[in-house]
Amino acid sequence: MFSVLKRLVVGRPLATTEQEHQRISKKIALAVFSSDAISSTAYATEEILFVVALGASSLALGLDVLIPIAIAVAILLAIVVTSYRQTIFAYPSGGGSYVVSRENLGETPSLVAGASLLVDYILTVAVSISAGVAAIVSIPALRGLATHRVELGLVLILIISLANLRGLKESGSVFSVPTYTYIVMLTLLVGWGLYASFTGRIGTVPFDKEAFDGTREFGGTLGLFLILKGFSSGAVALTGVEAISNGVPAFKRPESKNAATTLVWMAFILGGLFFGVSLLAHRLQPFPSHEQTVFSQMGLLVFGEGSVLYIILQFATAAILVLAANTAYADFPRISSIIAADGFLPKQLTNRGDRLVFSNGVVVLALSAGALIVVFGGVTNALIPLYAVGVFTSFTLSQSGMVVHHLKEREPGWRRNAALNGVGATTTFIVLMIVAVTKFSSGAWVPVIVIPIILLVFKVIHRHYERVRTNLAVTPEYRARPMNHTVVVLVGTVHRGVLDALAYARSLNPHRLLAVSVVSDDEEQAKVEAAWREFGLEEPLELVYSPYRELTRPLLTFIDELDAQRDNDIVTVVIPEFIVESWWAHVLHNQSALLLKARLLFRKGTVVTSLPYHLD
Amino acid sequence: MFSVLKRLVVGRPLATTEQEHQRISKKIALAVFSSDAISSTAYATEEILFVVALGASSLALGLDVLIPIAIAVAILLAIVVTSYRQTIFAYPSGGGSYVVSRENLGETPSLVAGASLLVDYILTVAVSISAGVAAIVSIPALRGLATHRVELGLVLILIISLANLRGLKESGSVFSVPTYTYIVMLTLLVGWGLYASFTGRIGTVPFDKEAFDGTREFGGTLGLFLILKGFSSGAVALTGVEAISNGVPAFKRPESKNAATTLVWMAFILGGLFFGVSLLAHRLQPFPSHEQTVFSQMGLLVFGEGSVLYIILQFATAAILVLAANTAYADFPRISSIIAADGFLPKQLTNRGDRLVFSNGVVVLALSAGALIVVFGGVTNALIPLYAVGVFTSFTLSQSGMVVHHLKEREPGWRRNAALNGVGATTTFIVLMIVAVTKFSSGAWVPVIVIPIILLVFKVIHRHYERVRTNLAVTPEYRARPMNHTVVVLVGTVHRGVLDALAYARSLNPHRLLAVSVVSDDEEQAKVEAAWREFGLEEPLELVYSPYRELTRPLLTFIDELDAQRDNDIVTVVIPEFIVESWWAHVLHNQSALLLKARLLFRKGTVVTSLPYHLD
Repeated sequence: MFSVLKRLVVGRPLATTEQEHQRISKKIALAVFSSDAISSTAYATEEILFVVALGASSLALGLDVLIPIAIAVAILLAIVVTSYRQTIFAYPSGGGSYVVSRENLGETPSLVAGASLLVDYILTVAVSISAGVAAIVSIPALRGLATHRVELGLVLILIISLANLRGLKESGSVFSVPTYTYIVMLTLLVGWGLYASFTGRIGTVPFDKEAFDGTREFGGTLGLFLILKGFSSGAVALTGVEAISNGVPAFKRPESKNAATTLVWMAFILGGLFFGVSLLAHRLQPFPSHEQTVFSQMGLLVFGEGSVLYIILQFATAAILVLAANTAYADFPRISSIIAADGFLPKQLTNRGDRLVFSNGVVVLALSAGALIVVFGGVTNALIPLYAVGVFTSFTLSQSGMVVHHLKEREPGWRRNAALNGVGATTTFIVLMIVAVTKFSSGAWVPVIVIPIILLVFKVIHRHYERVRTNLAVTPEYRARPMNHTVVVLVGTVHRGVLDALAYARSLNPHRLLAVSVVSDDEEQAKVEAAWREFGLEEPLELVYSPYRELTRPLLTFIDELDAQRDNDIVTVVIPEFIVESWWAHVLHNQSALLLKARLLFRKGTVVTSLPYHLD
Repeated sequence: MFSVLKRLVVGRPLATTEQEHQRISKKIALAVFSSDAISSTAYATEEILFVVALGASSLALGLDVLIPIAIAVAILLAIVVTSYRQTIFAYPSGGGSYVVSRENLGETPSLVAGASLLVDYILTVAVSISAGVAAIVSIPALRGLATHRVELGLVLILIISLANLRGLKESGSVFSVPTYTYIVMLTLLVGWGLYASFTGRIGTVPFDKEAFDGTREFGGTLGLFLILKGFSSGAVALTGVEAISNGVPAFKRPESKNAATTLVWMAFILGGLFFGVSLLAHRLQPFPSHEQTVFSQMGLLVFGEGSVLYIILQFATAAILVLAANTAYADFPRISSIIAADGFLPKQLTNRGDRLVFSNGVVVLALSAGALIVVFGGVTNALIPLYAVGVFTSFTLSQSGMVVHHLKEREPGWRRNAALNGVGATTTFIVLMIVAVTKFSSGAWVPVIVIPIILLVFKVIHRHYERVRTNLAVTPEYRARPMNHTVVVLVGTVHRGVLDALAYARSLNPHRLLAVSVVSDDEEQAKVEAAWREFGLEEPLELVYSPYRELTRPLLTFIDELDAQRDNDIVTVVIPEFIVESWWAHVLHNQSALLLKARLLFRKGTVVTSLPYHLD
């Protein structure tokens, strides 16, 4: 029954040989690999506003610093993208932060990168889904759904997870339609909005004290710290920029060149849209609100309430954000399978499910992101400080790795390349520090603690696997040590199953064969002894007295004593097990055999044989 | 670790021989066996009021019928007690409803009685604990706790359950102090209250529209139906009356005579207090309220707010109610173990835990009562209709059984005795019908459905055990059939554990020995074949191809084919298992062996041998 259900939900199994590679054009690659990066325009501007507008002494003052911060973020984007172009050419087989760090910086830095990436992908899902839900519940007609943000988010995660467990084919159109619709709609919003604003056709967003974050008042001055904090929030616009450099092998030949071109396109689209949105926000003066996104406020003003364009904008926003979450579903299981293959995560993460998907990774991602959404109540900007630390840690490590790469390889033009990556590494490191310091108290302390813990877990797991490997290693000269084989048949009451078990045990030709029965009073003892005589059984019957009506412990003591009598003893315990056909009937029988088996397995030199007796 | 925790909570294990009987005096027996019955005075009057006061057109009109209803209940009590006196003499070894029905009426009636008893004991716990909590949160100073009724109830259940898992010694003083305190306090309340009321020293309870059940208005007329419904509620005063007849063997000699005397004392105390409380309520005019019990309202008026006597009254009430719940903890596990020993409930209910307690019964009772408290929000009077049906079903069956007993035994005076029990049976049956009809829509339909379902479960379980018994039965002439023994060693990668497993398999001297490896692609196949050659292994290596990376299903197909080749084949599957010492390390290894073992056990003719390989 479970199996039928699984087939319905997950689809027919796929054979290992059905694994295939398809190569995609630049236009489709832009949609597939950039949805994560471009979708961050949907919340980055709002995140800056949340910090500066609420921290400054007035909304207007906050809006004034939006433009300089947006310019700083755009410059940061240019530096990071230039740096990543190097990676594309150096690692045409896909140079994720983990791989680049592992090959150039060594184990610990690569594990830090790995831990950052895993945390980031979980946060990508949580942040994107939360922001997508925010876009939907901002639509005036749907605002009643706002109280169900968490449930909506969880349903979306469930749908994406199931789709990915089926093994979502990365078909171009599924990705292209939402991504390009979003780009077009956002361009329309920014273009028409700026035109209408500068020509005086529209004014500013009407300020709504109710919808504006009600609990907080304007306060404090707009100092450098607040501006840097705003910048830290805006820097999340860069998340997902590394996706293209991970996916180089998927491009049409020449892969690196095509990937590099796509990266530059992506940077211009992302930078242009982000700056455009920030400029528009400066003009239209939307206010940070948990009831309605900044996007939705501006869309309503520019396109008019109830207009089709506004509805398309909101749904396109939600759609690209869901796509962004979906990219994490491709990346998290892949990265965790690589880390697991290196022996730092449980090996099960390397198992492909019967749809060729790293199913365990998908499940871990879904559960972690779902938990975050529940804990943070499905509100995006509570998660942002957690997000940025991981993103910039992996940027820094990846770029530093590239610097070392150039110094080692000394390929033509390596000095220039090393310099470019050096600038990238330094810049992203500075941003990392800014984020960690300015946002420490608002949540950046979480990754600062969590990433080292993950690192420690990686190391403990690795040590365990190493220990197992050396323990199991064996040379062709190895010979198993000779053994004295004792077979013990466990007897409760004497019935057909027990007689069959004794016959089976005899056929094993052990050095010694005996039956053992656990009794807790004289009456029980007399009963089993009488049966032994009645059936004329010749094997010695040992009685173990258990005053506390326990099975496992007295039996283990008995086996210890038996074992101590001879050297090289292997004791096989034959347990006649009564197998009933229906699950409910199992409840009707004592399951003490199960516990006993588990305990015996942990005892050295014991073999456990289950002799099932089936009901006719 | 679990074991240390268990010892701390439950105490040291007790040997079977430590089981002992202690006989108790009438004074202590009254406390031990009557707490359930006498404690029902704490809510019975209130339950009548809830029905008649809320159903009638005014509170005063409702209070008027209280007296006739109380008289009717007192008469009912006299009839039932007279009837039960017979049982005490006829069954000096303890004649519960189940035993009496089984011996006189046959299987099905006894199972109906058994089902009713089990349901009743669960409801005893839920109702008594809810009423006990109500007594506490009625105290003005503690009224803030009212919103935590459910949690308080669950904590009390947890404490009682743990105490009973330890095997509560039925020490006289633990029972005597609360029971006698309650009797004294209630006598004081009724006595002083009536005196003060008749002498005009106190008036009536001030009516508080707020505290009075706010959602309902007075309505309807006080017809016969409503009076009968009120009577049905009052009849719960009789719950627990049968306890003494169950516990006859615990009395000092002459057991039956002492028990009968105690029963009569109990009846007078219970009847007197119940009638007294009802009369007092008629005078003081308390109103049904979920905020404050009727008892508490009258206590406050009679003793004065803040008086020590009032506080003692409330705590004594809570204490005797907790004791009443505790008696169900003695009865439920005992009855369920008797029913299980007869083969109608899972055998595990007959296991005494290492403290000589039927631990499984205690756990089942605690979980069921806890669930009821949660579902009904810890409010007593929602549970009462469920309660009364079971109580009067078991009364009726028990008394009918006694009638049959007298007709069969024809002991001296049997005609008179049969007549007495006949009156008891008829009366309780009429009350059962009244309860079922008048309270059907308020919840009496639940036991009307649940008791037959339990009956069905009893029968299904019994059929299963019967089938098992006939299947396992065997004569001394039985000989196990001869077998062709094939041993299959499961091989993943070739390591030390696999070589040891092969050596073990060889030592079993099977008719046929082979190794089998499940591979999902050519690479895996080549790897295991190379290892086989490298280690010079001579056993045939069979490769099972599993394109969908599955283990269990292809292997089962392979064993089916192997099995089909010869007659009388016993296939032993040797699974080398890697055993790690810490629980967390288990997560790091594929647990596919576990699933495989479970599936193989369900296959006929397969023996599963686990060969643990321990890390050094």
